[in-house]
Amino acid sequence: MLGQFQIPKGDEIRVNSDSLKDVVKQVFLKCGVPDDQSEIGSDVLVSTDLRGVDTHGVSNMLRIYVKDYQSGKLNPVPNFKIIKDNLTTLNIDGDNGLGIMQGPYAMNMAIKKAKKTGVGIVTLFNSGHIGAVGHHAMIAADKRMVGICLTAGGTLVLPTFAKETRTGTNPISLAAPSEKYPYFLFDAAMSSIAGNKVRLVARNGTKLSPGSIGDDQGNPIMDSVGVDVSEDFIHIPPLLPLGGNRDQGSHKGYGLSLFVEILCTILSGNVPNMVDPNGNLCHFFAAFNIEAFTDYNNFILNMDQMLETLLQTPSIADSERVIYPGVIEYENELDRIENGIPLHKEVVDWFDNISKTMSVDRLKIF
Amino acid sequence: MLGQFQIPKGDEIRVNSDSLKDVVKQVFLKCGVPDDQSEIGSDVLVSTDLRGVDTHGVSNMLRIYVKDYQSGKLNPVPNFKIIKDNLTTLNIDGDNGLGIMQGPYAMNMAIKKAKKTGVGIVTLFNSGHIGAVGHHAMIAADKRMVGICLTAGGTLVLPTFAKETRTGTNPISLAAPSEKYPYFLFDAAMSSIAGNKVRLVARNGTKLSPGSIGDDQGNPIMDSVGVDVSEDFIHIPPLLPLGGNRDQGSHKGYGLSLFVEILCTILSGNVPNMVDPNGNLCHFFAAFNIEAFTDYNNFILNMDQMLETLLQTPSIADSERVIYPGVIEYENELDRIENGIPLHKEVVDWFDNISKTMSVDRLKIF
Repeated sequence: MLGQFQIPKGDEIRVNSDSLKDVVKQVFLKCGVPDDQSEIGSDVLVSTDLRGVDTHGVSNMLRIYVKDYQSGKLNPVPNFKIIKDNLTTLNIDGDNGLGIMQGPYAMNMAIKKAKKTGVGIVTLFNSGHIGAVGHHAMIAADKRMVGICLTAGGTLVLPTFAKETRTGTNPISLAAPSEKYPYFLFDAAMSSIAGNKVRLVARNGTKLSPGSIGDDQGNPIMDSVGVDVSEDFIHIPPLLPLGGNRDQGSHKGYGLSLFVEILCTILSGNVPNMVDPNGNLCHFFAAFNIEAFTDYNNFILNMDQMLETLLQTPSIADSERVIYPGVIEYENELDRIENGIPLHKEVVDWFDNISKTMSVDRLKIF
Repeated sequence: MLGQFQIPKGDEIRVNSDSLKDVVKQVFLKCGVPDDQSEIGSDVLVSTDLRGVDTHGVSNMLRIYVKDYQSGKLNPVPNFKIIKDNLTTLNIDGDNGLGIMQGPYAMNMAIKKAKKTGVGIVTLFNSGHIGAVGHHAMIAADKRMVGICLTAGGTLVLPTFAKETRTGTNPISLAAPSEKYPYFLFDAAMSSIAGNKVRLVARNGTKLSPGSIGDDQGNPIMDSVGVDVSEDFIHIPPLLPLGGNRDQGSHKGYGLSLFVEILCTILSGNVPNMVDPNGNLCHFFAAFNIEAFTDYNNFILNMDQMLETLLQTPSIADSERVIYPGVIEYENELDRIENGIPLHKEVVDWFDNISKTMSVDRLKIF
């Protein structure tokens, strides 16, 4: 993660991951979520923090989830409705449940189908925020498959040349197993930066890179720029698609965000938020059974060879190294299990406050 | 397409598309390709030129195909070998045939499987260049499905922070049907620009945008820059991933190129060219049967609503408009069927020359 997104050292407090998981679970329980679902939800969030994906862990997301449960926007006890069920495919109505808890179920259904037919595809609509999509892709990788998870929602991003935002940040993830090196785990918004990155920069008082956001007329800002966000962290400036401006490829980032919109939203029978701002989120899950295509050991051998070639590639400077998606996540996990999860002191204050108002345990500082 | 990639008006010669298709077919026949395959190959190439994807039509590609048939690198009479065949999946060894002819077969197999199970996934390895991947995705869209086609190969692109190139340009395409507006057709390299774009700029004597290529030490060039390419148009400067440099998101373009590498190459049981430079290309095809997820008419209605919302979005300037992938391709097709396909005079010279050396018909100028 770039320096501007990292917590300034003086503002960082390390907390024990088991304690964090336990407190998060208690928060979900207090919101009326059943025990098994609260367990899954806290596991997804804290795993995300362990991997270093601070944007999508407890810091930004939990307070929004709590607010949405309290306002009735999220349903703590949803009933899945199966809309269509085929040999390879499943389309599910999530009944306004929180996506971070529904994602593992959906991916496991995709895996089950992939075991039988080679591939399983599940779409899940009318669902809440799914957290870091890579978490759900990894569930398939852990089952000797290639996993893909996408999610679409919101209207934070400017189409190329647009004056107003229309598409979501619409992240794409893919996870694949390996043996000698950390699993491949790609997870990235198809906007130049994820919406939560703007919140991190605002909290840290740093600057965004050129090509991250547009001005209030939609013109791409191609200089470094600081940002203000509203107190509730919900209103953020218009984001640019991956690529920044047209000359540097924003039409590709914009096209990829529509790629995600079609597979998540339109394929599951819904309209995107640019058409219906009140619609809920839609997700897409794919599991590819490696054995249906090639020998599993051959796949692993080839993955390891590719990853090794990349890791051994000389870099442009001694201060940088060539890695691949998943390496930093793996290294973060080793460090954070050992040394605790770094939270901004503002986040720890939020937890202190919620401990009082919700009567849940206090976080254990590391 | 940006101005620097367009043929200067003085160098443009319009040719009749039927005549072009006929001459291209004769060229393939002279290379020893059977009649039905020559027909498919010329259709794919000329359809691509009709859509305005000049990078992947006859101008750059045909001369390379001819050279590769003559050198024995491409097999004009390949025998497909089915490696694995499951309910939903198929893995095919392409026996060194040209991808532009094998792609339609592979996508039709994916469609056949999708009719039965909801989704069809086909991997095709040991194959030649596939042309514009979007062409193959469109075959599924024309059959009331969502189509995806990816291809991986070559080592033209720098991973983030790398001094040497490792990944292919690895394009992603998705096509989806609609009714009131042109079909959605996204097709883009996951490098900042496609390799063929560098050839266009060299031929046109124009400049590349910032973030398109690296210098000979791999450092991203963040200014506009002209390029030299070798006489045979094969050696080009190192390309940057979509995003340009790390600050502006090149790690996302790089990750997406590995996403494609895993689905095309590793899933089909092969190693990428960064490991084995002599390996041939690998492709990935997916067909999603819309009816397996939702009512087809509902899908079309929702697509049309999304496309309409995008087309009606106000733009940042009167000189620009907000469109979506597929609009320009549709407009080009209408224009070029009517007014002919614009070729650079250098390309027409090449055709004149090939007419003599191969004894095929001369192109009809429009």
